[in-house]
Amino acid sequence: MPAHTPRKTRQSSSFPAEEPVPSAGEREASASESEQEGPVAVISRRAADRLRAGHVWVYRSDVEELAGVDGEDAPALLPVTDRRGMLLGTALYSGASEIALRLISQEAIGEDAWLALLRERLKAAIALRLPMLSAETDACRLVFSEADALPGVIADKYGDLVILQLLSKALDNDAVRLVTAETLREAVHPRTIVERPDARIRELEELSAPAAAPLYARDIEEPLTKTVFHLNGLKFHYDANSGQKTGAFLDQRENYAAAARYAHGEALDVCTYQGGFALHLAKTCRRVTGIDVSHAALEVAEQNLAANREQLKDSEVDWIEANAFDLLREWSDAGAAYDTIVLDPPAFAKSKRAVDSALRGYKELNLRALKMLRPGGVLVTCSCSHHVSPAEFTEVVRAAAGDARRRVRLIERRGAAADHPVILTIPETEYLKCLVCEVS
Amino acid sequence: MPAHTPRKTRQSSSFPAEEPVPSAGEREASASESEQEGPVAVISRRAADRLRAGHVWVYRSDVEELAGVDGEDAPALLPVTDRRGMLLGTALYSGASEIALRLISQEAIGEDAWLALLRERLKAAIALRLPMLSAETDACRLVFSEADALPGVIADKYGDLVILQLLSKALDNDAVRLVTAETLREAVHPRTIVERPDARIRELEELSAPAAAPLYARDIEEPLTKTVFHLNGLKFHYDANSGQKTGAFLDQRENYAAAARYAHGEALDVCTYQGGFALHLAKTCRRVTGIDVSHAALEVAEQNLAANREQLKDSEVDWIEANAFDLLREWSDAGAAYDTIVLDPPAFAKSKRAVDSALRGYKELNLRALKMLRPGGVLVTCSCSHHVSPAEFTEVVRAAAGDARRRVRLIERRGAAADHPVILTIPETEYLKCLVCEVS
Repeated sequence: MPAHTPRKTRQSSSFPAEEPVPSAGEREASASESEQEGPVAVISRRAADRLRAGHVWVYRSDVEELAGVDGEDAPALLPVTDRRGMLLGTALYSGASEIALRLISQEAIGEDAWLALLRERLKAAIALRLPMLSAETDACRLVFSEADALPGVIADKYGDLVILQLLSKALDNDAVRLVTAETLREAVHPRTIVERPDARIRELEELSAPAAAPLYARDIEEPLTKTVFHLNGLKFHYDANSGQKTGAFLDQRENYAAAARYAHGEALDVCTYQGGFALHLAKTCRRVTGIDVSHAALEVAEQNLAANREQLKDSEVDWIEANAFDLLREWSDAGAAYDTIVLDPPAFAKSKRAVDSALRGYKELNLRALKMLRPGGVLVTCSCSHHVSPAEFTEVVRAAAGDARRRVRLIERRGAAADHPVILTIPETEYLKCLVCEVS
Repeated sequence: MPAHTPRKTRQSSSFPAEEPVPSAGEREASASESEQEGPVAVISRRAADRLRAGHVWVYRSDVEELAGVDGEDAPALLPVTDRRGMLLGTALYSGASEIALRLISQEAIGEDAWLALLRERLKAAIALRLPMLSAETDACRLVFSEADALPGVIADKYGDLVILQLLSKALDNDAVRLVTAETLREAVHPRTIVERPDARIRELEELSAPAAAPLYARDIEEPLTKTVFHLNGLKFHYDANSGQKTGAFLDQRENYAAAARYAHGEALDVCTYQGGFALHLAKTCRRVTGIDVSHAALEVAEQNLAANREQLKDSEVDWIEANAFDLLREWSDAGAAYDTIVLDPPAFAKSKRAVDSALRGYKELNLRALKMLRPGGVLVTCSCSHHVSPAEFTEVVRAAAGDARRRVRLIERRGAAADHPVILTIPETEYLKCLVCEVS
């Protein structure tokens, strides 16, 4: 079990693979049989099989040869072939990342075709989301990287503000910025589009420094960087200049609504962050306690509560700054009882190696929660580690039910909201698991 | 791949475990240390751990001693202890079944307490279902065996008719019949309650012959045995005296509705049985073809279509009697194209040993379907084998997507309708998997 609840950095922005990277020592391999002219990436058999099975990533250790590529001036687009020279498609190339190649097409395409594809896929991604937007919900993830066949491109809408991230060296250029900003502007009509790269990935990918000015502002005198947006009829604050990660909780939108449907009585929201679940629980529960280890997050939670005070006036909501493991152990030992408990901890397993300890952490939290639920009580339990599979997560909750000697009915198996698509052949896109259970 | 599509016997009535049964040779074990007076079942350590983890089954091969039990006159209720004499609870005993004991309580209880428990659990089971019923849907599974903590008791409502099954020797007595019929009558107010045991299980459990008369009939002169019931606003025929299994497709009710939400254009319903999915698809598709290998099933499908002809008048529906594997291979090789395909084959894996061949069967059907779907097309793919886990089934569809070279977005992971509860610690209760996907 983790000694401390890690700070909430719930969701990686672009499913970075965090497997160890073996040194890529075989780059000066034998002469390629590729019939491609110009630069080409030749990949291992394993990696070729992976692409043929519908994945889009090639790890650096699987790149056997970069023919005609000058390290410093590597092109953004590279044809990819197997060892026998069979073309597998065209990929975005990153010399710095451990995922060296991200396939964008199964054809050989050049710069112009890529930009046309970019425009077309941005439009398709946005078209998928527009029906999800309403007066009740004016925020969503518009574009989600590999899940929209646009590796490294992430765009989130918070009311009138669109936040763009271009998370790969191959995207770090004016042509991509121009096409992306233009397409977003035409399809979404935001007041402002701001580019806001993830600092960690910026360093990893050796990206250029972000521009101070927004990519687009309808009113150039007054670009929007802060806003209040709506999820399921509730108001939330968003500040592009704060430390908050973009898209930090849009993926839970439908699970928030589901939790509110089943919740009742006295509720506990464990790892509440900025109060996302807690405020939704307050729609139907007479009392809600949100727990988080981050003081800063709870300050925003309190602001969010204030913004919804009128709507939630029948519910008593309070916040406790604490380590979830410590508090749940203490309370369950003391015999505390609740009708509804939400567990939405940060990603315990940031790498494959951390899975075992993550599973112990999930088990502990779920066991404590199940012990504290009154008969007829509801448990909403989440995992956002893509290294923990849906089956492993179910198994953990099952084991906790056995240990707690509670009969647990699984009401719903849920995942991320529909603006975070799951692509079957890219399992990393299915990272968020949410089980809704009733305890008897 | 199975050479022939097996006849549709989709759902086992009470999750029978079909593992091989080792000979139970250790019954004359050493003297029990149990402090129970009278008959008692002493079980192996493995079985005790299983019960402690929240399961309710003890296989015959795990029963180490049946102290004080005379083979012919075994009591219906038996206290169960581990080897050290620690009480684990009270179970229904079956001398004939491979599942010898089914736990009904973690306490030591006698006949009267058991009948009180039976009444209470029947009421709770029915109370869970009543909110699911409406003018649109007047049929559901009212009681589902282990999933409602009543091993062997199954009751289905089809309009005004209730069909009861008592599938264990320990339930085959007048006291249980009386309590069950009375509780069903009071809570559901049906016109008729008929007991209709599963022939295979009747033989397995050595049950008495079913009574010719209904357990209850409001109008004793005219007991109901045939009826038309409603699912999601559609009409279906039910005949208690036909060969149809009870509850054969109630579990798909919510998946039918989901399929209708996503379906469009030209649709194919593979293994349509009595037309459940096909008629729902006809709500939104201009053309629907239902395929089944059973002539008798398609005759009922045609009657069901006729009963809904007015509502479905904008859709052209036809039926083809054929083996699904043969037909799909032929059609996909010929380049046939559809906008919506439903795959709802019978349980390929009736035992653990059959899982590999079942997975090959699922793979083949899903591969053929994915190849035939037009861009933007919808696949609704089901598996009702509880031996095939949700993870295994997802993996099969993923592999099919890779082989078909199609990008497949997973829209929804679904299971059985809510009147078929899933109990986390009894994994067999989660037998039905349904994935809704979009192909681009």
